[in-house]
Amino acid sequence: MNLMNIGPLSFEEYETRTVAFHGCMSPGLLIGGFMVELATRSLPADALYDVISESAKCLPDAVQLLTPCSIGNGWLKILKIGRFALTFYDKHSGEGIRVYLDTDKLQQWPEIRNWFLKLVPKHEQNTQLLMAKIKEAGCAILSSRRVSIDVSRFQKKKGKPISICPKCNEAYPGEHGAICRVCAGVLGYFSESATQQPAKMLAA
Amino acid sequence: MNLMNIGPLSFEEYETRTVAFHGCMSPGLLIGGFMVELATRSLPADALYDVISESAKCLPDAVQLLTPCSIGNGWLKILKIGRFALTFYDKHSGEGIRVYLDTDKLQQWPEIRNWFLKLVPKHEQNTQLLMAKIKEAGCAILSSRRVSIDVSRFQKKKGKPISICPKCNEAYPGEHGAICRVCAGVLGYFSESATQQPAKMLAA
Repeated sequence: MNLMNIGPLSFEEYETRTVAFHGCMSPGLLIGGFMVELATRSLPADALYDVISESAKCLPDAVQLLTPCSIGNGWLKILKIGRFALTFYDKHSGEGIRVYLDTDKLQQWPEIRNWFLKLVPKHEQNTQLLMAKIKEAGCAILSSRRVSIDVSRFQKKKGKPISICPKCNEAYPGEHGAICRVCAGVLGYFSESATQQPAKMLAA
Repeated sequence: MNLMNIGPLSFEEYETRTVAFHGCMSPGLLIGGFMVELATRSLPADALYDVISESAKCLPDAVQLLTPCSIGNGWLKILKIGRFALTFYDKHSGEGIRVYLDTDKLQQWPEIRNWFLKLVPKHEQNTQLLMAKIKEAGCAILSSRRVSIDVSRFQKKKGKPISICPKCNEAYPGEHGAICRVCAGVLGYFSESATQQPAKMLAA
């Protein structure tokens, strides 16, 4: 078994950092590490890239651990698509590469396939074997394609005015309307007096 | 000036980790550090908490740097509310604390107020003075309230079946429908041939 590095890290270093950041090593995060590795190897060394994750589960943490892109600095975006794919793209030109877990290639890796497609109940899963198979597979279960992103859709809106909500007295983006989304009842999620009804509004 | 620690870190350690993770130290991330500090000090030491960030900008990175909660492990959630607030809550009982930047308290801190409410153009802003004032203010510009969260709204959906999209051959959450959201044209964001139109669907 000839293990590749994951980004600038050895596998062991990646595992240590993952446990510290994510709480545990997970199959998704390990595959995510190889996806980041494949994507960054496919880009010019001096590329100034942003990343789109098509899943909110595990994958964003692989990106945050291995690249300068985080959810808080805005260079990582999460889309509610639920596919296991990452797109790295030049933030100016939009040219980039999309890396994804290839279901066709999983035919040769039944343990990984059973986990990924949830074909085996979790309590029947041999996690140790699964992780060993993922390490063995590395990038062999991934595919990638050159893609083009409309960067204008992902650019930050700068300089939009801030308003103070007349109901809660908190600052909010003025473009949301005359009062903030919580006071408008659209995005409430907590109660101080058990009278406020939460509404569905999870973003990620 | 009697500076408090930020979580388990000294201010200098927090700054170093922030630059490594977020790319730079920012006013929002510094205030976010004090918010995490105030929230965790208000919770029982053995609390098993999840976090909700009401903003996608900067704040999530303070949480990810200072707590075990990350966007990829699902213990941190981001809501599209655009308010500068974090809620830490017991993931079982829903009882918790919401910490927010208090606009009333900012009256005494004009540099922070001007930055936060965008009252001064960025190029006229004295960033060094702003950061010094934030360090000086610490938790004095924050307020907190006990809140109660309906945890059922934030629990992970487990064991939902995975489908293979007949159009793109990729795995996706079966509950999304007969084909994945990208092939359905709802959440496309890239083109391989420039014929596919991206649609607005940013989650965070």
